[in-house]
Amino acid sequence: MVPRVSETDGAGHINNTVIPVWFEAGRDEIFQMFTPDLQFSDWKCVILSMNVQYKHQIYYGIPVTVRTWIQRIGTSSFDIYEVILQNDILCAEGISTYVNFNFIHQKTEPIPDAIKRQLIQHVKD
Amino acid sequence: MVPRVSETDGAGHINNTVIPVWFEAGRDEIFQMFTPDLQFSDWKCVILSMNVQYKHQIYYGIPVTVRTWIQRIGTSSFDIYEVILQNDILCAEGISTYVNFNFIHQKTEPIPDAIKRQLIQHVKD
Amino acid sequence: MVPRVSETDGAGHINNTVIPVWFEAGRDEIFQMFTPDLQFSDWKCVILSMNVQYKHQIYYGIPVTVRTWIQRIGTSSFDIYEVILQNDILCAEGISTYVNFNFIHQKTEPIPDAIKRQLIQHVKD
Amino acid sequence: MVPRVSETDGAGHINNTVIPVWFEAGRDEIFQMFTPDLQFSDWKCVILSMNVQYKHQIYYGIPVTVRTWIQRIGTSSFDIYEVILQNDILCAEGISTYVNFNFIHQKTEPIPDAIKRQLIQHVKD
Repeated sequence: MVPRVSETDGAGHINNTVIPVWFEAGRDEIFQMFTPDLQFSDWKCVILSMNVQYKHQIYYGIPVTVRTWIQRIGTSSFDIYEVILQNDILCAEGISTYVNFNFIHQKTEPIPDAIKRQLIQHVKD
Repeated sequence: MVPRVSETDGAGHINNTVIPVWFEAGRDEIFQMFTPDLQFSDWKCVILSMNVQYKHQIYYGIPVTVRTWIQRIGTSSFDIYEVILQNDILCAEGISTYVNFNFIHQKTEPIPDAIKRQLIQHVKD
Repeated sequence: MVPRVSETDGAGHINNTVIPVWFEAGRDEIFQMFTPDLQFSDWKCVILSMNVQYKHQIYYGIPVTVRTWIQRIGTSSFDIYEVILQNDILCAEGISTYVNFNFIHQKTEPIPDAIKRQLIQHVKD
Repeated sequence: MVPRVSETDGAGHINNTVIPVWFEAGRDEIFQMFTPDLQFSDWKCVILSMNVQYKHQIYYGIPVTVRTWIQRIGTSSFDIYEVILQNDILCAEGISTYVNFNFIHQKTEPIPDAIKRQLIQHVKD
């Protein structure tokens, strides 16, 4: 991902609120497991919590890498472990919890086995 | 409106891409004329063009005022004239064109007379 | 704070990444304790971590309230407890940790006693 | 560029305020002509105006292409012509005017010949 001028702040670095934006962008492949055509009318993934550790300043002008793994798979929820690197330095680290949510019935649903098998392939060794 | 740290950039001022965000926020009352309950399932207002003149730097730490007028009312489209002031200084000035759009039929529709009468009340003298 | 159209997402509600933005906006008064003139050249507050619990969907068209308290005051760091309410419903809850950082010497510094006395006045009962 | 969930809005498409963000991201190479190390302490490029034509809805889940050309080179200012394509469809088109600004002396400066020669190489045929 390439940091944008609009993502910096007056202190001269990438603003802290941009980290959740990049983390969410890194979850596209996971969203697609639940909503293969990525249509919002069939959206399933709802965030329950997010924990971010800020380790190092991130600069404009140098690309960053976002890496995303599955850390835990529960009955209806799962945890994502995600990191942002710049110049191979760990700059931010996060754990987010999502739940499989049925917007039409407005309730949580178990994660189907077929999706669980896909998620397992992204568990960090 | 109160400028946010996350809206500044590395050059130390409010980033230029924030101005369209503040202008859009200033259009809530107009959106409500077309969609009284502000539900997206009944959304009508689609932007066709936006022109922004940047007149003066905007700083964090000092509130800004967004002012919004109707400048032109056509058959199905209308123009909005909008300004941003900080310390009574004109910092940004814009003209945006919107159209009354029916998302279900995916086509432009004439602005109903009842809405035109509301828009007229916001024409700049 | 008034939710903006640009802060919603395709799922129809306020996007989760906006919550950290609103929380940061709610910390202006704290930032001003450390940097009275709010100039970035004298900025002190650096975020170390952020934890957000998403409790309830937030809708466009209804104002939200952001409330901000001090939860812990350490030697050089402190914790902020913050909530977002809409229609008096607790929608999001967070704890953020900041450190008093000297950008010129690039190192952490103890929080001066005068600022500690200000922070104490914002501790949640 | 890959559209992000956070860049969509409740109407189900990419929000109009994201277009200026993507356009600015497409100007990195131009910013680097004026500020080779991309340090904000030596920043030069200040935007004077922006004109965006919205031609077609942009969807999440499909990459977009941002293309950026120089359209006019004046004494101290220049115009950028920029487009956004998705599935080879022209979705947005813009013209932005920037000026070469000296932040230390707070005044406009002529564009140096060496930079003009670089800009010329990006003029649209």
